[in-house]
Amino acid sequence: MGKIGVFDSGLGGLTVLRHLLEQHQNTDFIYLGDNARVPYGNKSDSTIIKYSEQAVEFLISKGVQTIVIACNTSSAIALEYLKNKFQDIQFIGMIKPAVKGAISKTKNKNIGVIGTQATINSKSYLKEIATYGKYNVLTKATPLFVPFVEAGMIEHKAIELIIEEYLAEFKGKIDTLILACTHYPFLHKGISKYMGSDISIIDTGFYASKELIESNKSNDRTIEYYVTDSPNDFISVAEKHLNIKINKITKVDIEE
Amino acid sequence: MGKIGVFDSGLGGLTVLRHLLEQHQNTDFIYLGDNARVPYGNKSDSTIIKYSEQAVEFLISKGVQTIVIACNTSSAIALEYLKNKFQDIQFIGMIKPAVKGAISKTKNKNIGVIGTQATINSKSYLKEIATYGKYNVLTKATPLFVPFVEAGMIEHKAIELIIEEYLAEFKGKIDTLILACTHYPFLHKGISKYMGSDISIIDTGFYASKELIESNKSNDRTIEYYVTDSPNDFISVAEKHLNIKINKITKVDIEE
Repeated sequence: MGKIGVFDSGLGGLTVLRHLLEQHQNTDFIYLGDNARVPYGNKSDSTIIKYSEQAVEFLISKGVQTIVIACNTSSAIALEYLKNKFQDIQFIGMIKPAVKGAISKTKNKNIGVIGTQATINSKSYLKEIATYGKYNVLTKATPLFVPFVEAGMIEHKAIELIIEEYLAEFKGKIDTLILACTHYPFLHKGISKYMGSDISIIDTGFYASKELIESNKSNDRTIEYYVTDSPNDFISVAEKHLNIKINKITKVDIEE
Repeated sequence: MGKIGVFDSGLGGLTVLRHLLEQHQNTDFIYLGDNARVPYGNKSDSTIIKYSEQAVEFLISKGVQTIVIACNTSSAIALEYLKNKFQDIQFIGMIKPAVKGAISKTKNKNIGVIGTQATINSKSYLKEIATYGKYNVLTKATPLFVPFVEAGMIEHKAIELIIEEYLAEFKGKIDTLILACTHYPFLHKGISKYMGSDISIIDTGFYASKELIESNKSNDRTIEYYVTDSPNDFISVAEKHLNIKINKITKVDIEE
């Protein structure tokens, strides 16, 4: 199946790529981070669709036939549009795999979902969970998590307060929490500490990565990185927090 | 001189518009907020210049001849480029007026400057202050302030901790602090509380507004608002925090 495209609004999708690289050791990947226009999560549906479409067109121009939408906001808002528009492309979004993971973990059928404003407003997670039957689902937009991750302040007392502020209403009420934004695994430790170690935390990238079926193997696999703005933060977060070594990264313009 | 254009990356420039409206009661304004691509402050110079140029072209298409660049990041990175490219247009940036204000306030010649990463990296404030002689200037990028303002969490304990984290190195060392980002006046109270009431805090919009010279008067002035994404947050912040009533706002596409 050739190279696999991976798209995110910025560096959050690296938490998905990490799982893809671990689970698919002989697959070639092309990653695109639209960091010139990050974040997507507080933007309108039409803007998110437009940006996602431009990203997909870029990846298609690089010859991919399978694209992982490694951004929950884009998966929630743009995936159906993209599937309709690009019918020859196989898409893997974040929502179905994450929900499948949460359903397999929850024992008391009480699930929490945190994500960007756009993801939560879309009700995509509510709708997908409902296809499995009757579950009690609490959702909340947690818009400050992305800036804290982007600023690298993931263990500061202030983010502990923000975690508490956002998650207080979930505590004691759920046994499974879906991190419905690919930035949030960077805050896994703080979230787990506040919620308690008996809560199952669903990292969407881990489950999405399991959906990818390899048909082509590459003995000497390549990973190409493209960003729409300066790669500096991108490289430092990848190397410092995810142990992903980036050998080649190119800045590109994907705006029409 | 007709209508005055006012441009910002999003809603921060409303703190400038507030002063413009107060100081120039008979002037017509056209405000453009590029909230589809906010924030600018952590983007590269070439991206900031490109976005600023598109914004200016939009305002020129609306017939303005004077444009207030109500965004410190854009003023720091793009203003010289814009002046060169659009020589018929009169531009008012944020930096010169803010520095003039700070020089008039400081008694001990110790000035602090806080802004976005791009503004601080540009050293624009250091260079402008140096034209007044020998001053001791401390600068710091404070990238989490904008997301807290955008999230409306301007009086939370977490933002107090972030203010303390960022400004501890300034305390007791300066008598004047330039808020070199038009979002920051929303945090004036918290910053003043931490730094102490004897510190002069420079709101760039107040001083920039004084640079505008009225030649045309309008008895029944109009204010037009344009945004590049959903106007909802924009309207609610304007009305809730700045007491600016928005009667008409239009979503536009300024990307090429």
